[in-house]
Amino acid sequence: MQQQYILRIDCPDEKGLVHKITGVLYHNDLNVMRTDEFVDRESGYFFMRTEFAGDTDENKIVSGLIGILPSRANISLNKISKKNIIILATKEHHCLGDLLIRHHFNELNANILCVISNHEILHSLTSKFDIPFHYISHDNKSREEHETEVLKLIDTYQPDFLVLAKYMRVLTAQFSNHFPNRIINIHHSFLPAFIGASPYRQAYQRGVKIIGATAHIVNENLDEGPIIAQSVIPVDHTENATDMARLGRDVEKIVLAKALKLIFEDRVFVKDNKTVIFE
Amino acid sequence: MQQQYILRIDCPDEKGLVHKITGVLYHNDLNVMRTDEFVDRESGYFFMRTEFAGDTDENKIVSGLIGILPSRANISLNKISKKNIIILATKEHHCLGDLLIRHHFNELNANILCVISNHEILHSLTSKFDIPFHYISHDNKSREEHETEVLKLIDTYQPDFLVLAKYMRVLTAQFSNHFPNRIINIHHSFLPAFIGASPYRQAYQRGVKIIGATAHIVNENLDEGPIIAQSVIPVDHTENATDMARLGRDVEKIVLAKALKLIFEDRVFVKDNKTVIFE
Amino acid sequence: MQQQYILRIDCPDEKGLVHKITGVLYHNDLNVMRTDEFVDRESGYFFMRTEFAGDTDENKIVSGLIGILPSRANISLNKISKKNIIILATKEHHCLGDLLIRHHFNELNANILCVISNHEILHSLTSKFDIPFHYISHDNKSREEHETEVLKLIDTYQPDFLVLAKYMRVLTAQFSNHFPNRIINIHHSFLPAFIGASPYRQAYQRGVKIIGATAHIVNENLDEGPIIAQSVIPVDHTENATDMARLGRDVEKIVLAKALKLIFEDRVFVKDNKTVIFE
Amino acid sequence: MQQQYILRIDCPDEKGLVHKITGVLYHNDLNVMRTDEFVDRESGYFFMRTEFAGDTDENKIVSGLIGILPSRANISLNKISKKNIIILATKEHHCLGDLLIRHHFNELNANILCVISNHEILHSLTSKFDIPFHYISHDNKSREEHETEVLKLIDTYQPDFLVLAKYMRVLTAQFSNHFPNRIINIHHSFLPAFIGASPYRQAYQRGVKIIGATAHIVNENLDEGPIIAQSVIPVDHTENATDMARLGRDVEKIVLAKALKLIFEDRVFVKDNKTVIFE
Repeated sequence: MQQQYILRIDCPDEKGLVHKITGVLYHNDLNVMRTDEFVDRESGYFFMRTEFAGDTDENKIVSGLIGILPSRANISLNKISKKNIIILATKEHHCLGDLLIRHHFNELNANILCVISNHEILHSLTSKFDIPFHYISHDNKSREEHETEVLKLIDTYQPDFLVLAKYMRVLTAQFSNHFPNRIINIHHSFLPAFIGASPYRQAYQRGVKIIGATAHIVNENLDEGPIIAQSVIPVDHTENATDMARLGRDVEKIVLAKALKLIFEDRVFVKDNKTVIFE
Repeated sequence: MQQQYILRIDCPDEKGLVHKITGVLYHNDLNVMRTDEFVDRESGYFFMRTEFAGDTDENKIVSGLIGILPSRANISLNKISKKNIIILATKEHHCLGDLLIRHHFNELNANILCVISNHEILHSLTSKFDIPFHYISHDNKSREEHETEVLKLIDTYQPDFLVLAKYMRVLTAQFSNHFPNRIINIHHSFLPAFIGASPYRQAYQRGVKIIGATAHIVNENLDEGPIIAQSVIPVDHTENATDMARLGRDVEKIVLAKALKLIFEDRVFVKDNKTVIFE
Repeated sequence: MQQQYILRIDCPDEKGLVHKITGVLYHNDLNVMRTDEFVDRESGYFFMRTEFAGDTDENKIVSGLIGILPSRANISLNKISKKNIIILATKEHHCLGDLLIRHHFNELNANILCVISNHEILHSLTSKFDIPFHYISHDNKSREEHETEVLKLIDTYQPDFLVLAKYMRVLTAQFSNHFPNRIINIHHSFLPAFIGASPYRQAYQRGVKIIGATAHIVNENLDEGPIIAQSVIPVDHTENATDMARLGRDVEKIVLAKALKLIFEDRVFVKDNKTVIFE
Repeated sequence: MQQQYILRIDCPDEKGLVHKITGVLYHNDLNVMRTDEFVDRESGYFFMRTEFAGDTDENKIVSGLIGILPSRANISLNKISKKNIIILATKEHHCLGDLLIRHHFNELNANILCVISNHEILHSLTSKFDIPFHYISHDNKSREEHETEVLKLIDTYQPDFLVLAKYMRVLTAQFSNHFPNRIINIHHSFLPAFIGASPYRQAYQRGVKIIGATAHIVNENLDEGPIIAQSVIPVDHTENATDMARLGRDVEKIVLAKALKLIFEDRVFVKDNKTVIFE
């Protein structure tokens, strides 16, 4: 079987880009399995993702692409491989449990290097699946002190992505900037509704008829990063805030898993705080 | 065929309410077709809606109910009948057109008394269905002057409800307080997200993956009244704000029609800026 | 805290049922927390479910009810308690894994007595959660022989319900009749579409744009029992049968869990091969 | 403004197709606005749709494409323009009414040439919008006789597409073969569930928890043509067949309108009784 690659390109749009890019692949005798491209008309920006297979010299491909692309183009060419990830969690088990099961049965397209938590409660669950669990309490520590400890531990693992699986700590900009576009969070509301704390309580008090969850990339502003996926379910007057939280858990875990699949398969581009996603 | 009634009761909860209320109906030999009740545990408040048929003295029923209910109970007993409504619109035709067709084929459970608009553009559509159309321009008028004219016209019709079918004027508190819980609006976003102007533009800029619409009762705070119904559709990076607005129109018209059905069938209770709805 | 009960009644409808039933509860000084009732107009049949609390003599309540209900009424009065269940599975882990996690964190409203499978593959997963796993191979056995072995094992546990969590064996009528309305199955299609084997393959070949899953009660006809819950997700031409199966797994596990919650909370009535569900 | 075109190509897949096709466009100095392509891996078949603008010789483009495509390729190159359509209906107004309103406000991307019906009932509605209405009764006529009359009338209009907007007549294979892939139907169920007559009655009797509608291309087998779009809504035990039909009408009209938009914008390819759709 041939080596499989994912090529991602984004750059200002200009005439003939698809023709030229596919030409580089064609003339290197590569087998394109799937190509997606999109031009954002408002910004005049071009996005392309191609899966191909072939025995090739990666440098030659990239050199060929540099030769025909605008100078400001972003090019990434990677062998298809599993991503290495660290999961951060707090007390709630539903997202972590779902990810551990998917991982155990090889459905996550990622290696979970470890789980880090500011509470001990999920230690037992994590250990069932033979994943290292690190408890780093935030008691009697400033936010910065706690993050420094977490960061130090993360650095020993060198993960590709951090997954916040109901990690109930607000991150400093310093922390999030350390992993640009590499932290994925699940927020338990239909953003931008109910930013911040206790979104189900807020939703209950507002009397909404639909609740939801949002998986997004974390940037330095809380709950304002680029959105990857959202999903909703109906509620009515018979559900109080606790019921909504219970119902919402199933939405949260499914949306997070869906977003991670898109991220881990290199399907997500980030531009101007929004995502372009080739599903 | 016997006369059909809808009985609505809400009051602080206490033991035996259902037993006592149904007793009044039973001992008056009425045929209950459907009963819904709900007790809000947080507020300790009781809601009940009963459809029944029978030849009866309405005063006798109400007297009987007053005798067994808490003194603060709200009781309404009405013959099932069509509501009289006025539609206010501006330039967009999709909600108005949908309501006119439903009305023409007797599906709206309401009589449209007239359409009032601050633009002429929907005159022709309205006239096709033989509904009076009143154009009241807001040009060179203060908000209050314009509303005074509109109010004066409305008063000549004595409607049960006002329906804002994409009426793009902000109402004063004075106007909305004139019709407590009797104005229904369709807002083109998934409230409380994107309150105010240009919600599709806001949604596009935020990069959400789902957009929606909200039908709500109008109170004195813009877009903050009790929500009746909400619905959503998925979007992605290929849709710009104009596309979202186009897609959203189908959601808006269906949600508005659904909410109106609930309102016109006396299924909606309002309490603490939220709705209890017996669908 | 007082003892909590669930009262379920179904019978031919007649005037005054709600008044009389609630009278029995009221005169026994019980605290009704929630009542749902429904009259099916086509069949003239009455259904009621009441949650109440109080220190009472159960026999006295039931005697009181028998005195005022039609002779053909079904009455059940039970203390609120966890159900005892056995899960049957085959090779797929997603439904079982989801249930094991919910059970482990006390969210299932049931005790999983054991897992029975015709394959060994899910043994390790089950054991992680300290649940007994019984492997009963069907190799070289007739359907009846295999079922007899399974039945014998089940009988040692005396479960309230059997949950078929992707159990890929067709049950004989003899087996299913052994547990009337007590076997819950998840079928990986939107019934009645794609009955039988390989529904995702069938869905792919038909070119549907939505796929789904159905949780239902098992009766003697395969895939034709009363439906409890259904859910769907969109698909398009880019998904082949394998993709659909992958996407469908998340729907299956959520729908099954939702249906089980309804069943375990005694919210589901079965009548004429359909369900009446008080959510 | 330059002339806008839609180019559609489908053929057996081979290496370099995208490169070669986009090369023809690039070397003719055309502005590509959007390209979508898909390769069906199971059948090894290639689909591509491109929107471009430019002042060009259409024959030159097609010749260029023929020179580089497999001999069995289907190529169509059309100026973007409105389609000419005829709507066939029977008694139900909701789909027709919705299309008439969209057409009146120039949202349908089609010219409605006329409405043909086997009943008079929709005459008045159609006339409000100044569209010719032809009543062709089927009384005392064989299916073939009736169809012959209808066909004769249709031929005087030379439509691009026929839209069956709740046309409750079964078409003969002879009729449908007369318009290959050019007849669009809305079926009031979630196909392939509930094929044939009275699908809401069937759905009610089966006790499903979701109902739906399917827009599809008509081929010679009733309800078995390629599916374009489907949508669903939840129902429960409180809805009887009549309620389901009422609820379903809103789904039907929205799904039909969505499918027509896709068809009229040349976004739908048909292959092996399935559709590939570039939304």
